[in-house]
Amino acid sequence: MLDAPLITGQHLIAGTWVTSENFFESDPVTGDPGAYYAGGADEINEAATAAAQAFPAYSQTTREERAAFLEKIAEEIEARGAALTEIAMAESGLPAARLEGERGRTCGQLRLFAAHIRDGKYLDIRHDPALPDRTPPRPDLRLIQRPVGPVGVFGASNFPLAFSTAGGDTASALAAGCPVVYKGHPGHPGTCELVAQAIAAAIQATGMPKGVFSMVQSNTNEAGGALVQHPAIKAVGFTGSFGGGKALFDLAMARPEPIPFFGELGSLNPVFVLPAALAARGAELGEGWAQSLTMGVGQFCTNPGLVLLPAGPEGDAFAEAAAGLLNATAPQPMLTGGTAAAYAKGVEMLSGAGLDRLTGAQTCSLREGAPAVFQVTAADWMARPELAREVFGPAGILIRTSSPEEMLKVANGFHGQLTATLLMDDADIEAAKPLVPVLEAKAGRVLANAFPTGVEVADAMVHGGPFPASTNFGATSVGTMAIRRFLRPVCYQNLPEALLPADLQGIA
Amino acid sequence: MLDAPLITGQHLIAGTWVTSENFFESDPVTGDPGAYYAGGADEINEAATAAAQAFPAYSQTTREERAAFLEKIAEEIEARGAALTEIAMAESGLPAARLEGERGRTCGQLRLFAAHIRDGKYLDIRHDPALPDRTPPRPDLRLIQRPVGPVGVFGASNFPLAFSTAGGDTASALAAGCPVVYKGHPGHPGTCELVAQAIAAAIQATGMPKGVFSMVQSNTNEAGGALVQHPAIKAVGFTGSFGGGKALFDLAMARPEPIPFFGELGSLNPVFVLPAALAARGAELGEGWAQSLTMGVGQFCTNPGLVLLPAGPEGDAFAEAAAGLLNATAPQPMLTGGTAAAYAKGVEMLSGAGLDRLTGAQTCSLREGAPAVFQVTAADWMARPELAREVFGPAGILIRTSSPEEMLKVANGFHGQLTATLLMDDADIEAAKPLVPVLEAKAGRVLANAFPTGVEVADAMVHGGPFPASTNFGATSVGTMAIRRFLRPVCYQNLPEALLPADLQGIA
Repeated sequence: MLDAPLITGQHLIAGTWVTSENFFESDPVTGDPGAYYAGGADEINEAATAAAQAFPAYSQTTREERAAFLEKIAEEIEARGAALTEIAMAESGLPAARLEGERGRTCGQLRLFAAHIRDGKYLDIRHDPALPDRTPPRPDLRLIQRPVGPVGVFGASNFPLAFSTAGGDTASALAAGCPVVYKGHPGHPGTCELVAQAIAAAIQATGMPKGVFSMVQSNTNEAGGALVQHPAIKAVGFTGSFGGGKALFDLAMARPEPIPFFGELGSLNPVFVLPAALAARGAELGEGWAQSLTMGVGQFCTNPGLVLLPAGPEGDAFAEAAAGLLNATAPQPMLTGGTAAAYAKGVEMLSGAGLDRLTGAQTCSLREGAPAVFQVTAADWMARPELAREVFGPAGILIRTSSPEEMLKVANGFHGQLTATLLMDDADIEAAKPLVPVLEAKAGRVLANAFPTGVEVADAMVHGGPFPASTNFGATSVGTMAIRRFLRPVCYQNLPEALLPADLQGIA
Repeated sequence: MLDAPLITGQHLIAGTWVTSENFFESDPVTGDPGAYYAGGADEINEAATAAAQAFPAYSQTTREERAAFLEKIAEEIEARGAALTEIAMAESGLPAARLEGERGRTCGQLRLFAAHIRDGKYLDIRHDPALPDRTPPRPDLRLIQRPVGPVGVFGASNFPLAFSTAGGDTASALAAGCPVVYKGHPGHPGTCELVAQAIAAAIQATGMPKGVFSMVQSNTNEAGGALVQHPAIKAVGFTGSFGGGKALFDLAMARPEPIPFFGELGSLNPVFVLPAALAARGAELGEGWAQSLTMGVGQFCTNPGLVLLPAGPEGDAFAEAAAGLLNATAPQPMLTGGTAAAYAKGVEMLSGAGLDRLTGAQTCSLREGAPAVFQVTAADWMARPELAREVFGPAGILIRTSSPEEMLKVANGFHGQLTATLLMDDADIEAAKPLVPVLEAKAGRVLANAFPTGVEVADAMVHGGPFPASTNFGATSVGTMAIRRFLRPVCYQNLPEALLPADLQGIA
């Protein structure tokens, strides 16, 4: 175990820790760990230029070399484990157990991508051998997936490890063979710096090109805008709010050379409570939902903020059980003061909208959030599209439906979602059948009898969904398939073996 | 064989042939086959709405049902073979043999996609079985690719069959399970109508939902803009000019719900002549290049319009042989009067730019184009970025390089390309090594000792490339991998078997 490394507040640019002109102060609950340099377009330019210079060499590394590099990053993160938990707790307000779990997830993710590229199936190799006797003759054609180039990464406030500096976007881009320029998240700059130190140590230990990873700290929009617009950057991975993500998406599309912007922008994650399950265990389901809604103070992209619940006494039992548990749930510290303020504003908006409020008001100190649940008829919901806006935090809306047809109608009106969940019994299968085609068209993941907040890092996971849930058209930001975002197919026609990528040489 | 079907000039909307208010006249070399209705936003709205209504049923068809549908379309096109060749000749000016070959390619492509979806590997099925005893337990996760929704398709002028009404975009979208709204190409409206008749017959014969294919004829931008912006359309396939494609791309990105726009926008397709090959067979290579440049009057996306050729006498031998053959090549009719006018303007631009012109001027009648080849030093080329603009037709530029380093420098400055070609001997392998990483980063297909105009429809083909060659980020518009553009991954978590897509039921 290393000693707790020193936090310097600097940027990491191609292996060198550097300062810049301006500063920003981090503002955590439990004390300020230091002042951070705020980078801008100049620092981004240096980092992106270094990434472009590193690309030819890094893109030609073997899969084994990159796998060893990813594993070394995991090892270096683990070596900083205690210090990381300490600073991430101070910065994010998240509890130690959660952060330790997230560290395990982050390192597991790095190792999963190492195994995934060792396996090699992601290369998608295709070979159409030459047919010299055909009329016309067919040439030898070999296809393989190659890295797209330097990737810009933006971390999320709600997962300071797993969706941040060495999170899923960075891990999948590095695995693909793409250098990464990471814009530090101002909500947890010290955590960012410690993880960047771990990556820098892994670069040194494995002899990777120094420009393969850089981090620019910033609390303004300038650095982010410059990153998305830099000509050397060929794709972007982003997890965050709709507003911020959409603004960056627009910049990416308006470039002289547009680039793919893989943004995960959040979602309402509707839950459909079907009649037989509701009759059999309405109160239990209501409590289960309330627990899921408040997990991590509701600060998950996949927080189930919307419930479609039949009107009538059985639906009331669900609602009352949920409200009872939520009223007994004390306010909890949110990720940042800004998160808490935005959440309070969102709850105020829902309160002011004349919805039926099922939970009582609780007094919150600065940066705390308390659960808030509202109820609305399906007809009112459909008449008021402004309600379909994510309130990031432990807020929920119950949409009371008067018939299965009305439930289907509400579902048909939804925008794109990350997830859609069915709470159902075997007797609900016929009722669920017309819903499934609608839900699979609206969401990246369809669940039965589970809450969507758990996002397994696995081969079959999809975290993404139709706009506005994401701009991951046809892609996922979690799970091994996330690597595809940073690859492009290249066909080699009749190339001499000596000029082919190693993985295409000598194939049948 | 069917009798030559009647051309009505109408739109096909969800199984019904309909008229609209305005007309346009087609303007072929060999006579006007009729007046065509010019559709607009209303017709697009009807077609897109019908496609959205057809989507739930069509997206649930079995792979076998869709394969039979694609095969039936091929059969119906073949049944109209003679009539199709006749009208396509009149409209496009292309010779019969070329159009017959293109018909074979189009039907072969439909059958290839039928076989591809029968095989099922494109479904990308992944299964992470439940691990109930793990802490925390892992749920059952199954991933499959599902169709994105209705797709808008724009045909290309230069392939009135293979990249048009029932071309690669339509075939791959229908194979994926996506209804298609096709905007008729005003350069070959009669060909469009005949092929639409073939598709309509196949829909009827196989009992597919009528909204699964519609065609709106138009010679204005209104219909195209409306198609890209219609909320029911979830992806677009386009082949055509940079100007038109980029304008539609911008519309697609500016929608309230942005959608992927898979545009194939053309390219300069640079050819690199390496020293040993040049010394051994310079004149032969020059003639080979000249033949490729004039094939189809240079009207291929993959036309090799740019040659990087060492300065000095051996390069001169290539240039002289090429110019000799090109001067002996008579002007040929181009696809439309507009194509010929644009080509003449492009050649005039190059002439006016003070480049060294190697071919003599030829007198062209209206709609004809004659080969034109220019020569420039590498230094001049790099100083004048305006020269790097595709001139669609048989125009070429030889960039004379003074050293291998200069050749590499020019390559490094290229924008994205569909293809990049090496003309080389075994003795050139060392010279080629530094070029290959640059070329694979710039182009979708890298060739040795072949010209890029032949685009095999195969598993390993890539037709696409970095912007501005295409907006197919990570995708191809030719070959079986083209189906991926119209698919999105969906994960099913713990869903009862009865609710899973058929292809996910009962898997290990």
